[in-house]
Amino acid sequence: MTATTPRFRKPKIWTDAAPALVDVAMGRRPADLVVRNGRWVNVYSGEIIPGTDIAVVEGRFAYCGPDAGHCIGENTVVVDAAGRYLVPGLCDAHMHVESGMVTVTEFCRAVIPHGTTSMFIDPHEIANVLGLEGVRLMHDEAVDMPVNVHVQMPSCVPSAPGLENPGALIGPAEVAEAMGWDNIIGLGEVMNFPGVAANDAKMRGEIDATFAAGKTVGGHYASPDLGLPFHGYVAGGPEDDHEGTRVEDAIARVRQGMKAMLRLGSAWYDVATQIKAVTELGIDPRNFILCTDDSHSGTLVRDGHMNRVVRHAIAQGLKPVTAIQMATINTAQHFRLERELGSIAPGRLADFLIVSDLAALVIDEVWARGVRLAAAGRLEVDIPARDYPDSAKQTVRLGKVLAAQDFDIKAPAGANEVRARVIGVIENQAPTRALEADLAVEDGLVAMDRDNDVCQIALVERHCGTGAVVNGFVSGFGYLKDCALASTVAHDSHHMIVVGTNKDDMAAAANRLGEVGGGVVIFSKGKELALVEMPIAGLMSVERAEIVAAKAEKLTAAMRAMGCSLNNAYMQHSLLALVVIPELRISDTGLIDVTKFEKVDLFV
Amino acid sequence: MTATTPRFRKPKIWTDAAPALVDVAMGRRPADLVVRNGRWVNVYSGEIIPGTDIAVVEGRFAYCGPDAGHCIGENTVVVDAAGRYLVPGLCDAHMHVESGMVTVTEFCRAVIPHGTTSMFIDPHEIANVLGLEGVRLMHDEAVDMPVNVHVQMPSCVPSAPGLENPGALIGPAEVAEAMGWDNIIGLGEVMNFPGVAANDAKMRGEIDATFAAGKTVGGHYASPDLGLPFHGYVAGGPEDDHEGTRVEDAIARVRQGMKAMLRLGSAWYDVATQIKAVTELGIDPRNFILCTDDSHSGTLVRDGHMNRVVRHAIAQGLKPVTAIQMATINTAQHFRLERELGSIAPGRLADFLIVSDLAALVIDEVWARGVRLAAAGRLEVDIPARDYPDSAKQTVRLGKVLAAQDFDIKAPAGANEVRARVIGVIENQAPTRALEADLAVEDGLVAMDRDNDVCQIALVERHCGTGAVVNGFVSGFGYLKDCALASTVAHDSHHMIVVGTNKDDMAAAANRLGEVGGGVVIFSKGKELALVEMPIAGLMSVERAEIVAAKAEKLTAAMRAMGCSLNNAYMQHSLLALVVIPELRISDTGLIDVTKFEKVDLFV
Repeated sequence: MTATTPRFRKPKIWTDAAPALVDVAMGRRPADLVVRNGRWVNVYSGEIIPGTDIAVVEGRFAYCGPDAGHCIGENTVVVDAAGRYLVPGLCDAHMHVESGMVTVTEFCRAVIPHGTTSMFIDPHEIANVLGLEGVRLMHDEAVDMPVNVHVQMPSCVPSAPGLENPGALIGPAEVAEAMGWDNIIGLGEVMNFPGVAANDAKMRGEIDATFAAGKTVGGHYASPDLGLPFHGYVAGGPEDDHEGTRVEDAIARVRQGMKAMLRLGSAWYDVATQIKAVTELGIDPRNFILCTDDSHSGTLVRDGHMNRVVRHAIAQGLKPVTAIQMATINTAQHFRLERELGSIAPGRLADFLIVSDLAALVIDEVWARGVRLAAAGRLEVDIPARDYPDSAKQTVRLGKVLAAQDFDIKAPAGANEVRARVIGVIENQAPTRALEADLAVEDGLVAMDRDNDVCQIALVERHCGTGAVVNGFVSGFGYLKDCALASTVAHDSHHMIVVGTNKDDMAAAANRLGEVGGGVVIFSKGKELALVEMPIAGLMSVERAEIVAAKAEKLTAAMRAMGCSLNNAYMQHSLLALVVIPELRISDTGLIDVTKFEKVDLFV
Repeated sequence: MTATTPRFRKPKIWTDAAPALVDVAMGRRPADLVVRNGRWVNVYSGEIIPGTDIAVVEGRFAYCGPDAGHCIGENTVVVDAAGRYLVPGLCDAHMHVESGMVTVTEFCRAVIPHGTTSMFIDPHEIANVLGLEGVRLMHDEAVDMPVNVHVQMPSCVPSAPGLENPGALIGPAEVAEAMGWDNIIGLGEVMNFPGVAANDAKMRGEIDATFAAGKTVGGHYASPDLGLPFHGYVAGGPEDDHEGTRVEDAIARVRQGMKAMLRLGSAWYDVATQIKAVTELGIDPRNFILCTDDSHSGTLVRDGHMNRVVRHAIAQGLKPVTAIQMATINTAQHFRLERELGSIAPGRLADFLIVSDLAALVIDEVWARGVRLAAAGRLEVDIPARDYPDSAKQTVRLGKVLAAQDFDIKAPAGANEVRARVIGVIENQAPTRALEADLAVEDGLVAMDRDNDVCQIALVERHCGTGAVVNGFVSGFGYLKDCALASTVAHDSHHMIVVGTNKDDMAAAANRLGEVGGGVVIFSKGKELALVEMPIAGLMSVERAEIVAAKAEKLTAAMRAMGCSLNNAYMQHSLLALVVIPELRISDTGLIDVTKFEKVDLFV
């Protein structure tokens, strides 16, 4: 169903609701909801104020103060907070829904019980497959949620112009168009930082359109160099950055007027080091914001979401109210939404948590827009699954049935041995190494070297059905058996990456993803060991997060059974085409030396 | 002249300037200005960072960091800060230019040497005389200034609907129109707080139009009641308030998500008590803002402007950088101008001060948009006087030449004595007392009682030339001699208030203001003792602040010579028609009991 469920219809804007809000505050009209005797975690004053009542009408706070008795009528729902904390709903300031492999709806179902009531999502992945149409689909889904899902317009599609061909392009015209949509809150991570510092016309056009709309430009300065390129980037307009990892990164960003976004994702651990800027060096905390960036479905199901980040920040020595400010009002101000969310105060959306232990952030209840959505960690409302149109589910276009021969790597004529470039995976790191290996030639074809952990990697074009396959070598996964793993999550252009020790399995895995419309699958000796179907753009499942998490765990187990013991092995796999991070990657245009941003030959 | 002086043409917006900013930051293009070796007062991080260089191009900061050597070219102006502090230009978050009795231009000339580079002005007074046209005149003058003068659209014209008739009306339609003008930053002090709490349609329409434009609604909750009326007001949308006087006022406002604006004006002393919320009670300072509200020309000439407020706040125990935040970035954020002003950071307007002593705030130089405007307390640039159109200078329409008889107060037929209501002035306070006095009747007319300090007050209609005069009695000025003081500054409707012990002098004073187009004048025995001409709307002089201050001092001296020793006697005089503050006032509709908001008879 695509119709808006009436229950989750967006509340009236403050000014339309104002007559009712004022009437409730004055006691002339009963509230829909009154919560009594809470400890008000006040993110404006920095206080915790016991004995606070709040009254809600039209999905917004009407009264916050010592006694809302005058707001109670016959039909008012009255909740006794019994001295527990009233905390504003948590905000995730920058995140990719696609990283959870689920839809916006399923992501919300998973994170609402954890206390997240506002998300700022960057649908960068779907934009690489479906362009503006894909952004619109996720935007429209976002609008219907019972919590606030604001969308950042992806800025860098493709990420590496000239080195890769995604399924669609985004430029200033698309950005300008999207700025007019309801829930577009700004521009997503401007990761082409050399482009900004070089006054690249496309980057300028996108930033200009965002400023013109009065919206926020998200940054992504993924370099440790705090010299001129950093200053040039800042002067160009990006207003936040979540790529800092060192305490000096956070301080440099704040000094320049940017918001330092500290992330704790499934594989990002950037809070502990950077928060020392506040806890040890006394930097004003108001320009620090917490986010997750990327959370796998397993993390959401097992560990939590923004509650995990806030709890972690408190554990690093931050005052609880300061940590909460970094996940509420600081975020709201940054996105110019202070009148809408991020605090418990009159006029704002009635998004709040009832918390029984503040430092441990034990969330008893989650309310959004005055409706209780979750209690004791369990979702209490039905959020209907969202159906995506067929156009979004038929994005894996292989153009043909692949065969083992498509993965043949022909040796130069007459050669008995070749020296080949090999992508070297580094455990727990995004960069790769540019390795070289001497490989045997058999029947004119270059052979893999399982003993030295060199197997094949293929980039299979899947947006235009050209049937093109780029072949190469990879090392580091440790596969010991005949097998192949194929994935249509292949950052950032999201073609298909197939890694295998056996070409028949490579073909079988690739074809299987063609059949199911994308996802990730592992084959061994012709048998499917595990599959996570992701039919939406080849990036997202239509199933629940817990089911996806279970399937992903089965996949991990299968990879281990094949000999791969890397941490986050699947994530490493899916990043091998990320032609913006050194040193060696594969793309649909060939093998790419990302230290020089140029194509290189497979053979040295 | 009304044309824009090219020198002060508004700088390009950030995004248009961005290519130059980025080029300067990267060292590809020389800066216009480089300041070396400053101590960067960083309002984002809260630090003071020694050894900082800043580079400026296109009137904006391009680079702020440890070494701008790469930004220096042949024609770059290089300034050695020699270890002095670099402080963002100061912002006055809420003020009325008219209180200085000068034009916007002359106000700027007076305050720029004091370090003010951004003002948020509410032309409430001219709006009461000339309506939207008057706001437009001051707005257009504001746009041409070499500093940032943002205009708040007056919200309450008239202040007391039904009890007074100003020269023009402002309602939702005018507010909606003004929201489209360049320098309109929001809605000015919503002083009809009972109206907001009653969902008054006009107040709602104005607030709604301001929200719809994404602009800021200024508050003005002039009541000590922090109960329901306060909560009702907050729920209605006002976002700041400068009427608090007690520490609990500041705390209540901040808790509710409003900004607490603390003012130190010529006659307002509200910082010292309220700042204890921060210095003693530990409330987060980020939602506190400093302002002046009303500064007389004498204050500007002798004591300063926002430098005086910041210095005072520091003297109350606030950390200098915190006090500076309250007059820079906090203000900018509140008005959603963080990308434009309020900090020294890339992209922002290059408005900054070179300060040799931070705690004492000794300002050596004032720069705005990269141009040095003042040094050592002296303005260094010429800001041409602004000519106002004749329509703005012909606003004192008496309709006739007044005579002593116009001030006759006829006794009820046959009475030898009457008991009359008398407005009682209270020294140093805005409220008045509702007194009563027994007065003799001579030749059918009620007589004044100089021995008991009861003289006459008249409200002379001056907007429509009706010739109407409302007569009454006032006590408290202490005039001992034959004299009369007339003023066309007569808050808020700005008719003409004449107070006198002699009716011939009252007529002479009134007629004199009719001749010069308004202002304030004092007569004694037919002789003019002092005059401050204010031909623009009867509210503002066309002369320099120092000249106006000298004339105002002559006026004060003349009042003293007549026996009046009140502090701020002229201000007391000009507030006697302010029919929103209890207890007894005079308006063009009669004598008003402001405890009941109704007309009362002169005789008891």
